[in-house]
Amino acid sequence: MTGTSAQPDTGGPAPFTAGDYADRMRRAAEAADAAGLAGLLIAPGPDLVWLTGYRPVETERLTLLVLRAGHDPVLVVPTLEAPDAAEAAGAPALTLRDWTDGHDPYEAAAGMLRPDGRYGISDNAWALHLLGLRERLPGAGHIALTRALPMLRAVKDAAELDRLAAAGAAADAAYEEIRKVPFAGRREREVAADLGDLLRQFGHTQVDFTIVASGPNGANPHHEAGERVIERGDMVVLDFGGLKHGYGSDTSRTVHVGEPTDEERTVHDLVRAAQEAGFRAVRPGAACQDVDRAARAVIADAGYGEYFIHRTGHGIGVTTHEPPYMIEGEEQPLVPGMCFSVEPGVYLPGRFGVRIEDIVTVTENGGRRLNDTPREMALVD
Amino acid sequence: MTGTSAQPDTGGPAPFTAGDYADRMRRAAEAADAAGLAGLLIAPGPDLVWLTGYRPVETERLTLLVLRAGHDPVLVVPTLEAPDAAEAAGAPALTLRDWTDGHDPYEAAAGMLRPDGRYGISDNAWALHLLGLRERLPGAGHIALTRALPMLRAVKDAAELDRLAAAGAAADAAYEEIRKVPFAGRREREVAADLGDLLRQFGHTQVDFTIVASGPNGANPHHEAGERVIERGDMVVLDFGGLKHGYGSDTSRTVHVGEPTDEERTVHDLVRAAQEAGFRAVRPGAACQDVDRAARAVIADAGYGEYFIHRTGHGIGVTTHEPPYMIEGEEQPLVPGMCFSVEPGVYLPGRFGVRIEDIVTVTENGGRRLNDTPREMALVD
Repeated sequence: MTGTSAQPDTGGPAPFTAGDYADRMRRAAEAADAAGLAGLLIAPGPDLVWLTGYRPVETERLTLLVLRAGHDPVLVVPTLEAPDAAEAAGAPALTLRDWTDGHDPYEAAAGMLRPDGRYGISDNAWALHLLGLRERLPGAGHIALTRALPMLRAVKDAAELDRLAAAGAAADAAYEEIRKVPFAGRREREVAADLGDLLRQFGHTQVDFTIVASGPNGANPHHEAGERVIERGDMVVLDFGGLKHGYGSDTSRTVHVGEPTDEERTVHDLVRAAQEAGFRAVRPGAACQDVDRAARAVIADAGYGEYFIHRTGHGIGVTTHEPPYMIEGEEQPLVPGMCFSVEPGVYLPGRFGVRIEDIVTVTENGGRRLNDTPREMALVD
Repeated sequence: MTGTSAQPDTGGPAPFTAGDYADRMRRAAEAADAAGLAGLLIAPGPDLVWLTGYRPVETERLTLLVLRAGHDPVLVVPTLEAPDAAEAAGAPALTLRDWTDGHDPYEAAAGMLRPDGRYGISDNAWALHLLGLRERLPGAGHIALTRALPMLRAVKDAAELDRLAAAGAAADAAYEEIRKVPFAGRREREVAADLGDLLRQFGHTQVDFTIVASGPNGANPHHEAGERVIERGDMVVLDFGGLKHGYGSDTSRTVHVGEPTDEERTVHDLVRAAQEAGFRAVRPGAACQDVDRAARAVIADAGYGEYFIHRTGHGIGVTTHEPPYMIEGEEQPLVPGMCFSVEPGVYLPGRFGVRIEDIVTVTENGGRRLNDTPREMALVD
């Protein structure tokens, strides 16, 4: 292969227009200016997708969107990839500046930048490229975009909320169906494959994760799905999501194969109460950490605090994992249109785990769930 | 989902052992020391896979392998992901140092680093993480790994060559089969799907690209596969590859639907001659740019120089795209065990393109092709 690969747009209803992207780019440049930045340097990945609709694969060849208040957006792009870039939905709002193998791409970018300017740069920009830019302009400063403008993509507009709701509904439909498949006697990865098939069947074009964590595996919140054969009596954490129409889903439910013990019921009820408390803490003006604190307090008060070993939630949008984070120390106030997970869990090492997760969006009046399947413990076969 | 996802190892025969990974880490640390670096900072991605066998998904949560000559390797890892890291094949050769949500991961890393040291860092390390490290240790310096030690992964050992040869043979088998499918009347993406299926059928666990560029689309070396219906009389560039047993394949052949014109034959013969010339330039001690020059001279001498618009090749290993690059200005001498593509092309805008590509490895006596299907223009239906 000669170079990188563009992925086809995931399509979907009411595609965003060049005007939508132009508006996002203008707002981003203005936000940078207001934050005292000379501009933004946007790398391939979710920032670039959100700002331009362009989805190149990240490689050692520099692709960089340069946004500056009062200037038209410029996309520095390898010549080989310029035809693909020109087909992106946001391309009419962009000037393409291409560079050819054997030439210095950083020179092409540096010519647009102030030698003493401070720039926000995509979190996932490659170190190779940041160092290349620094070499050209050693006096320039850089700050990671999620530190400079953490909420740049966090507040979703109506068209984005529609897509997130559609993705959530598809994930819910997958959950309703997965409860009907046999669990006992099958390997985790077989159930995970079913989950992936269901997500695709309900319109996902990308499956990001299909966690099936049974019995003791459920006590590792990071376990995906493995060779373990699910047994009667297992708790099973299901956590799955991906992209539909370019926007993310992510939901968790914990089911039980056959009748649970009293302790299993107690822990499940506890996590459900914690999830409800986290959800109820969602309202405009509350801090992100308040959501975490509300959920965590329920679990801590019941004596299980040490077994809730991760933050309560993360944002979702064109990725399944982005700011804002519902975590102690995050004082960012919630704003209507933000979307994030509320997903407390309890993990008892060597025994079992429980996690319950919905995507929630902030409204003027509180929170609205984008997942709404029953949160009671479902019994499966 | 609570965090990141680990991917299962792609498996395969004779897996690399903890001893193999320990040896690679030791050699890398020594190479860094010899290059005047205080150490290496390795991010999730191909460097980390090659050095440890560990394949976490890249996220905003810091995972960083710190290599220093004379010290044991340390992997800084989020607590949530520590159980997965501990299962990596190279883990017995590593010390894990985990950090928990809400704590500063850069502090954990910085404690191992010299404040005035100069470190090589993975090209694809996130800007977020590089900037986080710089904030902790503003006096430290960083250089991209492919600039500091461009050949770190370039020379393959016997076990790696075996895997690359197996991947190449599988891609060749896919090419032999794809010639039997109907082309005329089908969309490019349908043939591309066949190619993907064939790669998997012949043992690929990951398909990275399946380019089917017909007629005028062939003149864009970056075109993947789209909605165009292939017609009789089309030239069709096929360029496909992925990973088998964790190592890459990448081969291109240009076929014709029905009888070609004289000009099409002429251009195809020209590219074939250029590819042969590039291959023949492969020998220990020759510079990378010599391979490019040899292939390019054939095309330029025939008057088509302006239509060969990319470099001649790129390295391959645990990725399908890595150093060394066969490009003008690359004076790196070829060393036995290096593996890379030789893939000249001619692209006539609006008309058609031709590309022919083999993976070649350097031996003591010259080059050895890891793809060896016929390079003559195949006629398909």
